[in-house]
Amino acid sequence: MDSKKFLLQEKDIPTAWFNIIPQMPTKPRPMLNPATKQPLSAEDLFPLFSEEAARQEMNTTDSWIEIPEQVRDIYKIWRPTPLVRAAGLEKAIGTNCRIYFKNESVSPVGSHKLNSAIPQAFYCKQQGVTNITTETGAGQWGAALSLASRMFGLDLAVYMVKVSYHQKPYRRSIMQTYGAEVVASPSMSTKAGRKIITDTPNHQGSLGTAISEAVELAMSTPNCKYALGSVLNHVSLHQTVIGLEAEKQMEMAGDYPDIVIGCFGGGSNFSGIAFPFMRHNLEGNKNTTFIAAEPASCPKLTRGVMQYDFGDEAGYTPLIPMLTLGHNFAPANIHAGGLRYHGAGAVVSQLMCDNLMSAVDIPQLESFDAATLFAKAEGIIPAPESAHAIAAAIRQARKADEEGSPKVILFNLSGHGLIDMTAYDRYLAGDLANYEVTDEDVARNVAGLDKII
Amino acid sequence: MDSKKFLLQEKDIPTAWFNIIPQMPTKPRPMLNPATKQPLSAEDLFPLFSEEAARQEMNTTDSWIEIPEQVRDIYKIWRPTPLVRAAGLEKAIGTNCRIYFKNESVSPVGSHKLNSAIPQAFYCKQQGVTNITTETGAGQWGAALSLASRMFGLDLAVYMVKVSYHQKPYRRSIMQTYGAEVVASPSMSTKAGRKIITDTPNHQGSLGTAISEAVELAMSTPNCKYALGSVLNHVSLHQTVIGLEAEKQMEMAGDYPDIVIGCFGGGSNFSGIAFPFMRHNLEGNKNTTFIAAEPASCPKLTRGVMQYDFGDEAGYTPLIPMLTLGHNFAPANIHAGGLRYHGAGAVVSQLMCDNLMSAVDIPQLESFDAATLFAKAEGIIPAPESAHAIAAAIRQARKADEEGSPKVILFNLSGHGLIDMTAYDRYLAGDLANYEVTDEDVARNVAGLDKII
Repeated sequence: MDSKKFLLQEKDIPTAWFNIIPQMPTKPRPMLNPATKQPLSAEDLFPLFSEEAARQEMNTTDSWIEIPEQVRDIYKIWRPTPLVRAAGLEKAIGTNCRIYFKNESVSPVGSHKLNSAIPQAFYCKQQGVTNITTETGAGQWGAALSLASRMFGLDLAVYMVKVSYHQKPYRRSIMQTYGAEVVASPSMSTKAGRKIITDTPNHQGSLGTAISEAVELAMSTPNCKYALGSVLNHVSLHQTVIGLEAEKQMEMAGDYPDIVIGCFGGGSNFSGIAFPFMRHNLEGNKNTTFIAAEPASCPKLTRGVMQYDFGDEAGYTPLIPMLTLGHNFAPANIHAGGLRYHGAGAVVSQLMCDNLMSAVDIPQLESFDAATLFAKAEGIIPAPESAHAIAAAIRQARKADEEGSPKVILFNLSGHGLIDMTAYDRYLAGDLANYEVTDEDVARNVAGLDKII
Repeated sequence: MDSKKFLLQEKDIPTAWFNIIPQMPTKPRPMLNPATKQPLSAEDLFPLFSEEAARQEMNTTDSWIEIPEQVRDIYKIWRPTPLVRAAGLEKAIGTNCRIYFKNESVSPVGSHKLNSAIPQAFYCKQQGVTNITTETGAGQWGAALSLASRMFGLDLAVYMVKVSYHQKPYRRSIMQTYGAEVVASPSMSTKAGRKIITDTPNHQGSLGTAISEAVELAMSTPNCKYALGSVLNHVSLHQTVIGLEAEKQMEMAGDYPDIVIGCFGGGSNFSGIAFPFMRHNLEGNKNTTFIAAEPASCPKLTRGVMQYDFGDEAGYTPLIPMLTLGHNFAPANIHAGGLRYHGAGAVVSQLMCDNLMSAVDIPQLESFDAATLFAKAEGIIPAPESAHAIAAAIRQARKADEEGSPKVILFNLSGHGLIDMTAYDRYLAGDLANYEVTDEDVARNVAGLDKII
């Protein structure tokens, strides 16, 4: 075990987030109001999000957005996070490549999600909001926002997809321990929930139904805002602390990445590790390859179509220009619950169209092969989501070795898997399967949707 | 949230462990062979433990024992660990005291146990051992030794108490993910196990039965040694990295602790945080108060008797001079499984007798009150074991405030509770109870044992 950590001091926590949009050769198209098909302004989002989050969402001009001192103070609980030269992993796969990972699993909730939960809660508090609401699937985002809300004395109601509420009681208990109200969705607490339960008794919920309930609560409750954990520009913005720290740490290591990899659900952790390095490509100084690793069962980047689509299944959100499988796409029930989302955020979708980044899809079994290999080699049991980034890194290392051209590979370890051991249990028992989605599946699903625009 | 971390660099990881025995005014009495009642030598322990562990166990002369470079290299995966000024906790309880905690929860397995698992596995590897075996109750020690064994390419068999094997599947899966063989104990794989199952079909196991099976396997398998995660001197020795780092970090903070607190099961994490500070008391330079926080349901320090006793329920181990509730004491099934042990190690027992440290017992509900308060204030969900240290720290802070004499309090956060959320769930549901043990209960239990010496 010759793995080596590169550590920063608290003073090295970035003082500003990096906004990639001003440097993009093609700006992402704007979000649209689904009724009028007109572009939305930041003000149009004020009823739903905190004003500062809405302004950040629409900011296409400022490359750097200051991190409030109060947010940096809380980042200090677990940041800066370590960068690790994964010598154990290199040895285990016998590669000549140098592999590094940024370890975001060290946050108190075990994932990178806290990087955006803290500022989102802070901006709510700052404008006098008293209540927040959100939805959560597997519970990583819900856990992060529960802690963030507690730290600013805000009340939080989390709509947790009913099947997860019962199958993942540990994450539910974490949210409750931080003092959040956790409701199994669909619930009787909203009109949307009551309608679903009335129409379909015993409905087990979906991210779509949970979003509908959370949005309804936010819109109908005084002093209540809604918060989202991925997909949107301001969430990716907050996550750039990952890549900005990693940049300094790669410098300490005397290396610069040829390849940067992140797993991909809605885009937040990928954007966080990638965008700060991508700016050097856009400035013409570097030629790094960026790879998003998505599950083969939910392949919006590798097989999706580029069009305006809703962010949720029920169609309550603004229209977002995205690479999408169709907002009603029902991904297989893989254990990487955080990657089961039908579309990619507007910025990443545009970067894909402009060939400024690429994507690979990873079958579930390959992800767990990589996860257990990594656990034995580096000691950390990765989240099933993060395992996709590890698998992609191993693929790239093997390819480079075959080509006789060793590379410097950096990936983001977005979280640990200690609360996902049921998944490992099933993997070790040989109970897990692969689920593939074909281009034809996607074409059929998208064609079946009403024409959106 | 004004909590502040004090961080060291890798070069600050101690290069030697601190052995308190040479400085003790009264040396602990020796372990005895139960058959001959004669003191044991290091060589007597060679069949069971690695030779270096056995030598360290018996070392009463060297105050500093060098940490092998290979062990320090692996410590670097997660060490040095942070020291935190718990300003959030201070504010939450409104104290004038300054409270610090050492955060051992950041290890890949989530607890301090890895500090001793790594050297124990290393010394086995060094002398050509190929197999290790151990027992585990709740699974913290088993998980740590699983990772340590994997890192040195050793095969590990863990006998896990049967009721935990079924009730705590997450910890079992963690061990299996690291490649350990995990056997529910009692099992059919040993004579001891077969006898228990034959005598008592459907026996749910105990730490005593699991130790018997592990010891039998070690003694009957070529090239196989046994490893223990607490109680013994060499385990406490390895854990002193905690206190040695904390000493430097308190200096960075410009403070020195008036009170040092650790939770107490067999003694390893308490010894680890306390002994390095205690040496300054023994040298006459400081007057710090040391407090071990044990559960009210298993109060060997506050209510136990000092006598020679077995380390296991079945009576297979050497006789150890200990504060004990009797080796057949059956503690209530509290969620802090790591604190359910009948006796204290020889060194701590002697220090208690000499009034060089003290102890408090904490009811289960008070420990969870403290745990949830801490989670909300500092963001980290503590292990149920560590919650006892937090509760004791809160008691001390309130006492100091009442006396109008604010203190500097340092406690050890031995692990996180992310794999113990079932316990929090039951606490939040109001399902947890307190279990008290009286002096009369102890006297009755000890009197019922055969006279040992």
